[in-house]
Amino acid sequence: MWLAAPPGDATDEVLRANASFYQAFEERDLDAMSEVWEHSDRVTCVHPGWAALRGWGAVAGSWVALFNGPSELQFILTDVRVAVEGDVAWVTLDENLLGAGTGATVAAQNLFVRRDRGWVLVAHHGAAIASG
Amino acid sequence: MWLAAPPGDATDEVLRANASFYQAFEERDLDAMSEVWEHSDRVTCVHPGWAALRGWGAVAGSWVALFNGPSELQFILTDVRVAVEGDVAWVTLDENLLGAGTGATVAAQNLFVRRDRGWVLVAHHGAAIASG
Repeated sequence: MWLAAPPGDATDEVLRANASFYQAFEERDLDAMSEVWEHSDRVTCVHPGWAALRGWGAVAGSWVALFNGPSELQFILTDVRVAVEGDVAWVTLDENLLGAGTGATVAAQNLFVRRDRGWVLVAHHGAAIASG
Repeated sequence: MWLAAPPGDATDEVLRANASFYQAFEERDLDAMSEVWEHSDRVTCVHPGWAALRGWGAVAGSWVALFNGPSELQFILTDVRVAVEGDVAWVTLDENLLGAGTGATVAAQNLFVRRDRGWVLVAHHGAAIASG
């Protein structure tokens, strides 16, 4: 048996951090979402159609609002790509959303920075793909 | 006189690379745009509403199409922030577009990697901010 990504492989670690983000999102788990992010002024988050949120306070507030909102979302992630450069990694993917209302696809980019405790999210950027 | 960003300062270098990107965009200058980007498979570009483009070939093709299209765009960049982590830097900003039709605002993120020749763009991600 051959393991494509041995434990500790950076790409594998980043994919796990990325999966934790979507798991926290789907489960509406604020504590888990807080664990995923760096808590700093430099973090940014763009939810599709929203203005950019800057700083952990504003970003955290958006998760509170979203998790208290009516839409429970489920994500089918496709075309997931990881690039690692030193202690920074970015993941690009399509979020295929299942949930209230019609399905939609969002082109997303998640930017992670390596810390002693693992990879933390510093930027999430989602852009709705126009249908048709 | 006190210089906030001495020559060679990473933030200053990144801001200049970022300005080169928008200058090439406004001037519809394919050679200049080509200079801005890393030419690799890992580059990604999301124009507002478009599916993600991956790899320099696809990204370059989009600039050819845009520069041959009818819309000459002008950008007023606001809320520009730079973060540098090792040899990677990301710029978040609002692109306030002046041009054909009504104005629009795009929340953008530009990701740069440091090379010997300077900072090169590896990802551009734009998401239209919903009006109202």
